[in-house]
Amino acid sequence: MGCDYIALANPGVQGLQPYQPGKPVSEVARELGLEESAIVKLASNENPLGPSQRAVDAMARAVGDLARYPDGNGFALKAALSAKYGVAAECFTLGNGSNDVLELVARAYVAPGDEVIFSEHAFAVYPIVTLGVGGVPVVAPAQDWGHDLAAMAGRISDKTRVIFIANPNNPTGTWLKRDALQAFLDSVPEHIIVVLDEAYCEYVDEVEYPNGLLWLERYPNLVVTRTFSKLYGLAGLRIGYAVAGAAITNVLNRIRQPFNVNSVAMEAALAVLEDDAYLARSRQVNAEGLRQLEAGLSGLGLVWIPSIGNFITFDTGGNANGIFDRLLQRGVIVRPIAAYGMPSHLRVSVGTEAENQQFLDALSAVLKEIADGG
Amino acid sequence: MGCDYIALANPGVQGLQPYQPGKPVSEVARELGLEESAIVKLASNENPLGPSQRAVDAMARAVGDLARYPDGNGFALKAALSAKYGVAAECFTLGNGSNDVLELVARAYVAPGDEVIFSEHAFAVYPIVTLGVGGVPVVAPAQDWGHDLAAMAGRISDKTRVIFIANPNNPTGTWLKRDALQAFLDSVPEHIIVVLDEAYCEYVDEVEYPNGLLWLERYPNLVVTRTFSKLYGLAGLRIGYAVAGAAITNVLNRIRQPFNVNSVAMEAALAVLEDDAYLARSRQVNAEGLRQLEAGLSGLGLVWIPSIGNFITFDTGGNANGIFDRLLQRGVIVRPIAAYGMPSHLRVSVGTEAENQQFLDALSAVLKEIADGG
Repeated sequence: MGCDYIALANPGVQGLQPYQPGKPVSEVARELGLEESAIVKLASNENPLGPSQRAVDAMARAVGDLARYPDGNGFALKAALSAKYGVAAECFTLGNGSNDVLELVARAYVAPGDEVIFSEHAFAVYPIVTLGVGGVPVVAPAQDWGHDLAAMAGRISDKTRVIFIANPNNPTGTWLKRDALQAFLDSVPEHIIVVLDEAYCEYVDEVEYPNGLLWLERYPNLVVTRTFSKLYGLAGLRIGYAVAGAAITNVLNRIRQPFNVNSVAMEAALAVLEDDAYLARSRQVNAEGLRQLEAGLSGLGLVWIPSIGNFITFDTGGNANGIFDRLLQRGVIVRPIAAYGMPSHLRVSVGTEAENQQFLDALSAVLKEIADGG
Repeated sequence: MGCDYIALANPGVQGLQPYQPGKPVSEVARELGLEESAIVKLASNENPLGPSQRAVDAMARAVGDLARYPDGNGFALKAALSAKYGVAAECFTLGNGSNDVLELVARAYVAPGDEVIFSEHAFAVYPIVTLGVGGVPVVAPAQDWGHDLAAMAGRISDKTRVIFIANPNNPTGTWLKRDALQAFLDSVPEHIIVVLDEAYCEYVDEVEYPNGLLWLERYPNLVVTRTFSKLYGLAGLRIGYAVAGAAITNVLNRIRQPFNVNSVAMEAALAVLEDDAYLARSRQVNAEGLRQLEAGLSGLGLVWIPSIGNFITFDTGGNANGIFDRLLQRGVIVRPIAAYGMPSHLRVSVGTEAENQQFLDALSAVLKEIADGG
């Protein structure tokens, strides 16, 4: 009767559920018959200001070379990152988004049956990359929605190969302080790779928030990952990076695809890296938007989790998927996070002031609708 | 004394040599102190005409959305590919170049210790993706520089999971005829995945050359891969795809990164897919260039391997690396292929008429230099 090509796949792959992305505006418009311009997408933690004009200009300059392969070694961008952060260029691995470098760590260091530790309610890509290589996910329970470092340390076994830590964490917005994280790193045997995912670090303005790059010399097993998809406003182009010691970087570069980062992304990243005005404005819009959303959610009587990212997660107190659907009907896309073990919460990204208001107004109407038995 | 992070990596990864890409023009310019405009790059089988103007225009329209994640499902591009090729959209897996989908097949279907068959002198990515997952490369000797299908069939064992076939093959330009390839496919057990890499198929104008897409219903174990990096002129953007039955496609989509293809690449690909004038001109320039290179190489007394791709490989009769270096000094970049088991050959991509002539002139001068004992 023929072959079952799903059963034939590696066991870890069979167990995978594909990542559920935020719905693209175009898809919602198609499904609901709405104009794209009427839809507000606050579902994927993107920069609501759109890309930096400098990045757009750099792209335009890059088009003549599109038929050429990118520089597979990312010479210019690594040099710029090295100069900006004071870390040697040989310590950078560029990725097709930071998703790519997270996956490279698993593919390099996790074999079938090896264990990978991460927290409950942490980023969905950690279990995906673990299962993809046949690894065993070991999930430590969260504390107040955030990482419980003691619980994570307690799950280290002789099969542990990698630990993923998100700081701040997505989708909860929670974060770990310098002293606590340093004590944890001190306790991890150095043959276990610790990935510190700092995708949202550029939004943070807390004195006790640690910069992982400053720890690279102290912890040779540390891999810090960052992205141009959030504050830097280049999610569509796919570019992120890992920073680690030269030996780990050598390994990651052996298995990355030779041309894993497109040339337009590298040119745009180079440009936005120096666009201080854009970055400052993006941070300010986010800080103001967070306060606006906090106040608005509180005004609706909803409990939210304090966040230092560019999103906030709140408890709907009921059927989050139902509220998600009703918001969608009103052209507002947020993110259900039942797959993160949070079935009554929704995550909303910080938008512009007008977008945040449109979301709050729609949410208010939806809650009223439900209260009225609609 | 600390941990050895290379020895700690998975065994297959430790055995990897990173892919050696063609030298980027910028790197050669830096190293030799030449102007970029003085350099001719015929090293990476790129379209010498540059990108389609329609693709460039599409990119410009896409910039406003750069801060948004791409459509992870590639709805619009899959619909266009489906319409163009008459294959259901659910049979397409988009990749970050076809390198990405080649790797996905290995990651989905090859576990440590499993065997993967490919030909001597075949594309370097096949051993890289095999070793990367701990698989065992089984190399079948070539015949007249091309795939020897009988030798490949003879190496099938109960550990064989995947067979890679390049048609035409890079870097040799050789190809397999319809009847021979169909007889081979008939002989392969259907639990073994056969990847038919057609990266260069759009250049081919031979009546006996098979279109792999027409075989998908007949062979449920067949995966056809194609790319926008060659004839379509978008190597810098990274986009390619696999076409296979719905079950295999489901598996490949489970392990691909959720946003593995950037949004600019999808917009540009959509545009060039319909740019018949650009594609026809690109084919014509290539056909004329191949004839120009064949005649020029013959005129220099060199033996070349007949090619139906956008490149030609010739025997230098001696130290190919030395000739490569001397060409480089003259601003002409070609590709040494010692890593493909061809230490006396060089591969040259088909350029514009002027570029081909610049290469032939430089090669003539280099050969004279050597003959003169220089």
